[in-house]
Amino acid sequence: MAGTPTIASVADRAGVSIATASRALHGHGASPRTAERVRSAAAELGYRPNAVARALQSGRTGQIAMIVPDAANPVYARMTSAVQHELAADDRQLLVTQAVEPAAVAAAIARFGPSTIDGLIVVPLRPEQQVLEALERSAVPTVVIGSLPEGAAQGAVRADSRAGVRLAIDHLVSQGARRIAFVNGPVDTTPGRQRLEGYRRAIEDAGLEQDASLVVAAADFTHAAALPAVDELLDRGVDFDALVGANDLIAFAALRALSVRGRAVPGDCLVVGMDDTELAQIAIPSLTSVDLGAEARGTLAAEQLLASLRGDADAIAGAVVAPRLVVRESSTGMEPR
Amino acid sequence: MAGTPTIASVADRAGVSIATASRALHGHGASPRTAERVRSAAAELGYRPNAVARALQSGRTGQIAMIVPDAANPVYARMTSAVQHELAADDRQLLVTQAVEPAAVAAAIARFGPSTIDGLIVVPLRPEQQVLEALERSAVPTVVIGSLPEGAAQGAVRADSRAGVRLAIDHLVSQGARRIAFVNGPVDTTPGRQRLEGYRRAIEDAGLEQDASLVVAAADFTHAAALPAVDELLDRGVDFDALVGANDLIAFAALRALSVRGRAVPGDCLVVGMDDTELAQIAIPSLTSVDLGAEARGTLAAEQLLASLRGDADAIAGAVVAPRLVVRESSTGMEPR
Repeated sequence: MAGTPTIASVADRAGVSIATASRALHGHGASPRTAERVRSAAAELGYRPNAVARALQSGRTGQIAMIVPDAANPVYARMTSAVQHELAADDRQLLVTQAVEPAAVAAAIARFGPSTIDGLIVVPLRPEQQVLEALERSAVPTVVIGSLPEGAAQGAVRADSRAGVRLAIDHLVSQGARRIAFVNGPVDTTPGRQRLEGYRRAIEDAGLEQDASLVVAAADFTHAAALPAVDELLDRGVDFDALVGANDLIAFAALRALSVRGRAVPGDCLVVGMDDTELAQIAIPSLTSVDLGAEARGTLAAEQLLASLRGDADAIAGAVVAPRLVVRESSTGMEPR
Repeated sequence: MAGTPTIASVADRAGVSIATASRALHGHGASPRTAERVRSAAAELGYRPNAVARALQSGRTGQIAMIVPDAANPVYARMTSAVQHELAADDRQLLVTQAVEPAAVAAAIARFGPSTIDGLIVVPLRPEQQVLEALERSAVPTVVIGSLPEGAAQGAVRADSRAGVRLAIDHLVSQGARRIAFVNGPVDTTPGRQRLEGYRRAIEDAGLEQDASLVVAAADFTHAAALPAVDELLDRGVDFDALVGANDLIAFAALRALSVRGRAVPGDCLVVGMDDTELAQIAIPSLTSVDLGAEARGTLAAEQLLASLRGDADAIAGAVVAPRLVVRESSTGMEPR
């Protein structure tokens, strides 16, 4: 056979459709027998797909990039996993890169172009002006997961943090809690600001006393940063019967600090986290957590991006994903499992 | 100023070196004041770096890709984080993609080419023939993290799983354990095979009885897959005073199953995991774990790759990283913290 082998010649030799050959070569959507036949055909022909050839032939690279603030936070593992699942069905590969500071996010957006990727998903923790400008100048279709300032040109797929905190508070009140502490992340982030607002409104609407001494903010949404914040709260000696962590990592820091001081969870103090990461199921006691729709947001963002790439000009429209409370051992009297 | 603005014109306007301008634009290694000055200069000039322009100007894309088996496993978060840290110092961005089945890993390797990335780091869980062939044909410098079959053309940066399991067993013996159970992952993977070998040899060398009823294998290295495996072990009714999980997620499944059956850790049974993930510190009790050098392996792989990109033809040589035992509450009589 003359010339460079193509996916068409591989499909022909294997006796399958081009779509089937493509799926088989990318490791999904084909039976093991078909996959083996396609791989053999590809090997015999010396077929070798690559981004350049694909881009030249199809006008696409087959790759979608995603910029997340903290790849080590399991909530982003859930989100990227959902995106990857959607992309696989469209035969595209996900590339994840990490950038948290606005300058780094803006630089990463600017760095990606149509020679590398077909589209981009950005999760900005601090959507400052330079990030918004980089988004506007993005050279490929781009979907944002997160909250953008009012008046931003772009729609975004976002969680409803305020409603999420309300679910946590209402659940704790229904379990008998009356003095509910809140350990937040940094309030100069969009999630930190919104979760604090959600806490204040929910406490007010529940008819409970607003007490500023029940609120602390960690320097970061990490376990390590939350430990001193929870210690600070406990050192105040203020009485509380329940605690909400602004994410699961913060809630785990609370479990640790309470354990060190001999306060049993859920016996002496109920605890609820947010994000419903895999950790929440794994912990002992397992952690009640508010699912802010990390998977749903990833899925929606991927769907909008793919629709846009298929030519739907209005596909990238943003959306709000409703939160969901997942009750486990840390906020109830249940025995483990 | 005529023509397309370059990083040199940005540096000139900001009154800094080109290296400083580049670092500032990529969000690291510059003071906030310098970074702000560089960003302003870039904005005023309309400077916009992108992969194409960079590749054309410098013969490099500024991007390194990494293929990991399971982006949700925190051990890969540690590893990719170490790689990212090394690359940042060389002004390169890391793109992480996930592929576990050999066909998908081979396809991902083949898909990356010099128009997209400068180099590649691959972490293959099952280094089958098609993966080895894809590695040989890789169009960019490529470093493997993992164990390749004997006789493979390529060196690899790898952990010493056998020595790691030995550290766990010797520690448990020193704590008084005599009947040590082992919950492995799948034995058709390189880590599963090596960890089982390590367990058998260490038990023998410690002069303990080899008892096949103390060993089970989970269908995957995940928490969910390990729960039924640990239940199977417990249902056998065989006596044991300590347990080694082949990774931390498996050890957490053991903590859960033991808790459900009312066996206290560390009071009734000592538990040790492997990988020393962030979870190990967060758990209550915190988990003793064998650090198999995920960070060190990531750092070494990145160093070898960067040296190769700087022209050192022999840089990609592989290496073996020694394991390290991190003792925490789950294997000692200590109170929390």
